[in-house]
Amino acid sequence: MSAQTEYNELLAKLAEVNDLHKAAALLSWDQQTYMPPKGAKARGEQLATLSALAHRLFTKSQVGDTLQRLAEASAELSPDENKTVELTQWHYDRATRLPEAFVKECSETEAQAFEAWTVAKKNADFKTFQPHLEKLISQARRRADYYGYEGSPYNALLESFERGMTAEKIQPLFAEMAARLSDLTARILASPNQPKTDWLDDTEWAVDRQWDFSILILREMGYDFDAGRQDKSAHPFTTNFDLHDVRVTTRLHPKMLFSGFRSSVHEGGHALYEQGFLDADRRTPLAEAISLGIHESQSRMWENMIGCSRAFWTNYFPRLREHFPQELNDVTLDELVRAVNKVDRTLIRVEADEVTYGIHIVIRFEIELALLEGELEAADIPAAWNAKIKEYLGLDVPDDGVGCLQDVHWSYGAFGYFPTYALGNLYAAQMMPRIEKDLPQLWEQVGRGELLPLREWLRKNVHEVGSRKTAPELIASLTGRGLEAEPFLAYLEKKYGELYRL
Amino acid sequence: MSAQTEYNELLAKLAEVNDLHKAAALLSWDQQTYMPPKGAKARGEQLATLSALAHRLFTKSQVGDTLQRLAEASAELSPDENKTVELTQWHYDRATRLPEAFVKECSETEAQAFEAWTVAKKNADFKTFQPHLEKLISQARRRADYYGYEGSPYNALLESFERGMTAEKIQPLFAEMAARLSDLTARILASPNQPKTDWLDDTEWAVDRQWDFSILILREMGYDFDAGRQDKSAHPFTTNFDLHDVRVTTRLHPKMLFSGFRSSVHEGGHALYEQGFLDADRRTPLAEAISLGIHESQSRMWENMIGCSRAFWTNYFPRLREHFPQELNDVTLDELVRAVNKVDRTLIRVEADEVTYGIHIVIRFEIELALLEGELEAADIPAAWNAKIKEYLGLDVPDDGVGCLQDVHWSYGAFGYFPTYALGNLYAAQMMPRIEKDLPQLWEQVGRGELLPLREWLRKNVHEVGSRKTAPELIASLTGRGLEAEPFLAYLEKKYGELYRL
Repeated sequence: MSAQTEYNELLAKLAEVNDLHKAAALLSWDQQTYMPPKGAKARGEQLATLSALAHRLFTKSQVGDTLQRLAEASAELSPDENKTVELTQWHYDRATRLPEAFVKECSETEAQAFEAWTVAKKNADFKTFQPHLEKLISQARRRADYYGYEGSPYNALLESFERGMTAEKIQPLFAEMAARLSDLTARILASPNQPKTDWLDDTEWAVDRQWDFSILILREMGYDFDAGRQDKSAHPFTTNFDLHDVRVTTRLHPKMLFSGFRSSVHEGGHALYEQGFLDADRRTPLAEAISLGIHESQSRMWENMIGCSRAFWTNYFPRLREHFPQELNDVTLDELVRAVNKVDRTLIRVEADEVTYGIHIVIRFEIELALLEGELEAADIPAAWNAKIKEYLGLDVPDDGVGCLQDVHWSYGAFGYFPTYALGNLYAAQMMPRIEKDLPQLWEQVGRGELLPLREWLRKNVHEVGSRKTAPELIASLTGRGLEAEPFLAYLEKKYGELYRL
Repeated sequence: MSAQTEYNELLAKLAEVNDLHKAAALLSWDQQTYMPPKGAKARGEQLATLSALAHRLFTKSQVGDTLQRLAEASAELSPDENKTVELTQWHYDRATRLPEAFVKECSETEAQAFEAWTVAKKNADFKTFQPHLEKLISQARRRADYYGYEGSPYNALLESFERGMTAEKIQPLFAEMAARLSDLTARILASPNQPKTDWLDDTEWAVDRQWDFSILILREMGYDFDAGRQDKSAHPFTTNFDLHDVRVTTRLHPKMLFSGFRSSVHEGGHALYEQGFLDADRRTPLAEAISLGIHESQSRMWENMIGCSRAFWTNYFPRLREHFPQELNDVTLDELVRAVNKVDRTLIRVEADEVTYGIHIVIRFEIELALLEGELEAADIPAAWNAKIKEYLGLDVPDDGVGCLQDVHWSYGAFGYFPTYALGNLYAAQMMPRIEKDLPQLWEQVGRGELLPLREWLRKNVHEVGSRKTAPELIASLTGRGLEAEPFLAYLEKKYGELYRL
């Protein structure tokens, strides 16, 4: 069989596995948007079947044999074809290194742990969750051993979400970030120039008009509604079933004008990424995000750096006022910009602002790293958590429900996921100087509501890359440097120095 | 391996195949409700993958071996388990009798034929569709040979949609039906007592209030909105992903008040059937409709016999008037009942009323039967069609676009499907005397808006049966008789005799 024939057979197999994953993604989307409540049991079964089948088809030994022969025939394949083989090999290795019995054991543990976590969080009762967490941590350590790693065992888990990234690269940057953000937060909160937000908090913001405004902004960002749609869900998310069918969801509260807006712009950033893959890469691993961190760089750049900028609101405040003429009659542009960027300490990660958000991530990363390296056990988590919250944010944690039990991630075994949220901010801030160099009129354009030049830059330099690079490779190619925290910290110190007149 | 262990393995396989089919059903539902237009290509690929995988998994030779061993061990299995084995064997035989190359050839022919039909219908140009139809007919004949049959080759195709039914049983009944309906239609149209419908046709019926009324009626019918939902689509349909997730769609026109209402009640009847399967039968072939004809008996009983009855509107006319107080201010109950049951000849099946609908089906059945038995060829269809329309309806067919090209079914090779529409009416009318015997207060209850007793009767006597019986078996068990047209014809002659004072 020629290498090309063999490669085409690989593509057919990848297309089949891809279709199963995309079908599962639609089932999940429906579960979170339109599914009637009693449909949950069957939906769980269907998702389990699709996922097991995809795994079974992908990990067949023929796939491994094909990959091996294609690796030996690399001279006969194009660069994209070789990259596809390499990425598939990477996925194949990770999918086959975990013994089937171990995967089953983990699934069962996670299902029980999720149930226990739901109750434990509600009751702020860490003790009932602790035995589950012990199993989850033990499984995470074993998973790292199965995957294999260099340096910290944490790297083996990180690799699932952030290929090519290591704890050794992250650790010093995150330590510096926590210190600098902690200091910045303290200075912000000590400033006499606090934003005035009574107009914001005391008003009912009609959700249908919030909805209309969010659709308007998504369109302005260049999100293609012929290849996507926005719906409502309890937790906003982006999903795709193809680059021509990328959907976002949002959540609107009548008392929280900017929550829905930020969520739409955030998911819109994710969605532009997925709409921006290349048609030629469809149904192959090339049409996938580089990493969760790079994905998050897109959402956070749009949400925070663009959507909360003074330039953005210079153009869109009048448009927002068209939706809420009475409510915004007496509000000035300056008041709006300061309100949307209001900083405050909170115990809850998902309620955190742009400045304090990173602190929440560092705390989780430091705890996870210590857990994986055997320096911390499940029982130690509440004390470690509360000490770090006190150290970095100066807050006392009244109970574990708003402390170490607040996030769902650990309950389904997702150790190594949290850092990607903060890496998104770092990547975005590293990209921005390069964008400003390539688009010298960027902020004037944003100030006129011209958002498409930025989308085009991101499309060309990030989206269309697909999975051809790792995050470190992409950042190096765009900035000539490695991962750095300084651009992000400098951006925050400048922005909030001005907003709070520090 | 014990029979029970082997049976459990069969169930696991059936559950997996079921989940793939249900996932595909959700993908189709989404395609017709919420999918953005550009998502169509990927959706087609995903549906093809799921369907091919389900077929591949189900037709594995191990499944056949398991079935054979279980058939030999029937003494060790319960009646329901034996019925599951028997039904699975039936499905397995039908799935494996068609050679793979033939299935592929049919798919390709159908894909091309569908495209050609779309254009041919628009241009009323039979000649361009004829070569495709020739292939489709030839394939239908070969399919019948592959499946095998007794009596007419048509029976082999009918079996796919109406297990246990034969052309020999249908033919004399349909011939009588066409003659009687043709006569009844002529008498109705000659009656001086035509309904007054200017109030209906000259009014704009706000679609949001039509929507609210349709939801109200679905609830009153006992449709469980915690296990289902209604959405909008171009063509109304019912689909399920589980008995606890059964969805309907409707289509609303501001100029057609009763079109949306009838469509909701019709789909509601289908949906009650699928919500009425037994929990214990989930993910097995027992939790499936007996046949398309029995399915249609449920929708048509609710739509026509209940939803268009005077008793129904005695209660629901005041409720409808709450939704349209001004529009219905001067309309009487009698005017409404006569308008909703208005009879008129039309060339188009989907626009036909309860009386003339059956005629359209008989025409299609007679042509299909002649095609399968080799008495008619594709080229003969337009002339045969037009002659029958003239004979039974007295209408001239101006062009094939509103004649033999109007329906999509043949373009995807669905010969043997049409009769099930009319069988639904016959089954419903055969059941009704038994229902009236078991529920002597039925019409008083309907007149008070108490629809649940009927739902309960149908649940117990039809829905929960699942696929344990064939349609002839079910009808025999409920009525002690075989398939008959007389109850349906007598019902129509009585109802319309009164409405039109014949």
